[in-house]
Amino acid sequence: MNEEWLQQKAKDHLWMHFTRMGFYKDNDIPIITHGEGCYVYDTHGKKYIDGLAGLFTSQLGHGRTDIAKAVAKQTETLGFFPIWCYAHPSAIKLATRIAEMTPGDLNRVFFTNGGGESVEAAWKLARQYFAEIGQPQRYKVISRNLAYHGTSLGALSITGATGIKNMFEPLVPGAIHIENTDLYRSNTSDLNGEGLSYAKQCALAIERAIEIEGPDTVAAVFLEPIQNVGGCIVPPEGYFREVRKVCDKYGVLLVSDEVICAFGRLGYMFGCERFDYIPDIITCAKGLTSGFVPMGAMICRDFLMEPFLADEKKLFLHGSTFGGHPVACAAALASLDAFEKENLLENVRENEAFFKSELDKLLELPIVGDVRGAGYFYGIELVKNKVTKEHFSAEESEKVLFKFLSPRLFEEGLMCRTDDRGESVIQLSPPLIAGRKEIREMAQILYKVIAEACELVKTA
Amino acid sequence: MNEEWLQQKAKDHLWMHFTRMGFYKDNDIPIITHGEGCYVYDTHGKKYIDGLAGLFTSQLGHGRTDIAKAVAKQTETLGFFPIWCYAHPSAIKLATRIAEMTPGDLNRVFFTNGGGESVEAAWKLARQYFAEIGQPQRYKVISRNLAYHGTSLGALSITGATGIKNMFEPLVPGAIHIENTDLYRSNTSDLNGEGLSYAKQCALAIERAIEIEGPDTVAAVFLEPIQNVGGCIVPPEGYFREVRKVCDKYGVLLVSDEVICAFGRLGYMFGCERFDYIPDIITCAKGLTSGFVPMGAMICRDFLMEPFLADEKKLFLHGSTFGGHPVACAAALASLDAFEKENLLENVRENEAFFKSELDKLLELPIVGDVRGAGYFYGIELVKNKVTKEHFSAEESEKVLFKFLSPRLFEEGLMCRTDDRGESVIQLSPPLIAGRKEIREMAQILYKVIAEACELVKTA
Repeated sequence: MNEEWLQQKAKDHLWMHFTRMGFYKDNDIPIITHGEGCYVYDTHGKKYIDGLAGLFTSQLGHGRTDIAKAVAKQTETLGFFPIWCYAHPSAIKLATRIAEMTPGDLNRVFFTNGGGESVEAAWKLARQYFAEIGQPQRYKVISRNLAYHGTSLGALSITGATGIKNMFEPLVPGAIHIENTDLYRSNTSDLNGEGLSYAKQCALAIERAIEIEGPDTVAAVFLEPIQNVGGCIVPPEGYFREVRKVCDKYGVLLVSDEVICAFGRLGYMFGCERFDYIPDIITCAKGLTSGFVPMGAMICRDFLMEPFLADEKKLFLHGSTFGGHPVACAAALASLDAFEKENLLENVRENEAFFKSELDKLLELPIVGDVRGAGYFYGIELVKNKVTKEHFSAEESEKVLFKFLSPRLFEEGLMCRTDDRGESVIQLSPPLIAGRKEIREMAQILYKVIAEACELVKTA
Repeated sequence: MNEEWLQQKAKDHLWMHFTRMGFYKDNDIPIITHGEGCYVYDTHGKKYIDGLAGLFTSQLGHGRTDIAKAVAKQTETLGFFPIWCYAHPSAIKLATRIAEMTPGDLNRVFFTNGGGESVEAAWKLARQYFAEIGQPQRYKVISRNLAYHGTSLGALSITGATGIKNMFEPLVPGAIHIENTDLYRSNTSDLNGEGLSYAKQCALAIERAIEIEGPDTVAAVFLEPIQNVGGCIVPPEGYFREVRKVCDKYGVLLVSDEVICAFGRLGYMFGCERFDYIPDIITCAKGLTSGFVPMGAMICRDFLMEPFLADEKKLFLHGSTFGGHPVACAAALASLDAFEKENLLENVRENEAFFKSELDKLLELPIVGDVRGAGYFYGIELVKNKVTKEHFSAEESEKVLFKFLSPRLFEEGLMCRTDDRGESVIQLSPPLIAGRKEIREMAQILYKVIAEACELVKTA
């Protein structure tokens, strides 16, 4: 299998995800062969720093013999068994370990195969839970504009990024979208003269949506601790405390979609700990196994299982073949061991201020409008004009982000994400094992390449 | 971790799939610890024959060091990387190998994390494909009553088993359901006097649904080669040839949902080969990796990718983090190697007649109405009266299937499935490595326990 064979066969047979396959008809596909720590290598032997942890996923980095051993052992012992009316030790151990790590009484763990499936499970549970307690009319959900919650049709309905969903209408009825919080562009002062903090104003948007829909028809609110799409949208201080109050007031479930933010991304096991709130459900995936085997989970507060325990014949009418897969559980358990042994939460917390300060240097550049995020999760928003905060037009964004920055950053050996669903942003989310050396390396490449892009904009 | 700890923690934290958790408050959960070949063992050291291959999944059986080695090697080399604008050698090799095995020009492989996701991807592709070629009004899909196509909200809409979906209404609009084929109960003679074979009559049901909905609104027909729910519903001779004609007549895509039937279950790599038709899309999962790592795929004919190749900026707006996971690809490649080395397709074909004849002995028993299936995939339908083919009532089914047969078969060391969504059936689907000894063992346990159940019905 030489490079030529791989290129040809990839073009003939591999339908890549969210990928402009037409572009690769006449261009080479980057083919990644192996990885070590924070770095991955392509078929030409070229080295890249993995500034996105694969896709917000590889918390432990690459080339891990510890995980390989755990995965091999489980594969030999019990390489697959469903948890439909059976259990196995690895699923029990992992569910227990997760329950012990979560805040509050988030004690019930329903395993899935990924983030989208966790969100599907959460919406389905919300619907059935309310039906079981005599409120079957509660089926709607509220989420935020641009927010990505998955791509299966249920999760896609909750997703707020219209660009990836309007092609697939009609979707599941009952998914309502509200505005994001926006500390960069909003007037966060007391807008309506009622003495409301910006956090309260934003929570009020959720309350208004609940009231407009009819409180007794709304089942759940889905929010990411830090929203990914739009570029690491950090909530205003006190936001989740206010949202929790609104949900409690109307008997609506609060779902913390932590597919990205859980498992150390923000320096805590769960994103809700960072912002000090207790949701009714946590949906997670990615970092749960550090990506070594596909897996997700929906973690629920105790009261959500009560209707299903009250009657011997009752069951949550949901499941999937691979949910609670023993090899995935073994990978997750080994990954959580590594979190402890290598003090990964501490590593993130210790380096967070340094990471932010390195990225803040980019603010010297004329097209860098905002640097935001927390832990090991940052977005750099690019603007046409720093004073007016004017966005790039769609054509400028295509030119600057996709035609220039994306390939140039890659050429310089930095894997990160350029995205213009919403704002024009560059995102960083490295493995949690990254230290100051790797952070500095990423920041320096960014500075160099964005500086080049500034020239491009000037002459545009 | 002793038995007592595992039982308690499972009850406290592990939310099992499609499981009556209330039942296990006061009953022990069966906890499976390891497996070897066609057998698995529980925490008490008790041995069970895995008559369902986990869940129609473990084609190679359990305790495979060959797969463990392949999985460990890939985990160390590149344990995760997304195929969003990148590729890696294992995904390219697997896509190529799959394309080489499929009939016709089913050459384009889009990887997923499981069967439900494959179905979601197929519906989404059907919608976007038609939108791209100027027929955006085609979004509906037709599938059969009872058929199981997955549990995420899109796949669940296609699923025909009302018992697991009506709790979750409203679902995705546009999923239409028609009757199953039924060789056991239908009058398969020329019903309407128009000289139509039973296969043509059944295909006509699809044609009528297309016409009623409006042909230019229908995107796809989803069918399993042998439908699982309802108990291994085998199509009448020539059915798929007729369905293919109907789909071609109206420009509707034919999706062969082979989550169960692909990868040797019917003695062929793909179920459509067994029944000699070429679908436009094959959805698969389970047996692709023999279950060792979660994975699915949507395999498409070339024409479906054409609109996405015609323009450098076009893309199928779909994807998931773990799609094309390197470790899953490595498991699938190693599993396909084992298929060849161990001549698994030949094993199934050679033993199929023996398997059927062993199960046909059950027809001696007064409550066994029908034995049907193919390859290593059989359903045994239980009836109250063999002459009238009268069904058990819901209470009788609960008593006979769930209270008696299910625990007694388990007690006798046979894992299989009892199901009454639709007909009352027992299903068998053992690992493809099973030989005549294991087939005889399963048949003998079934004979003994069903004979006991007959006594129960008599005195009912």
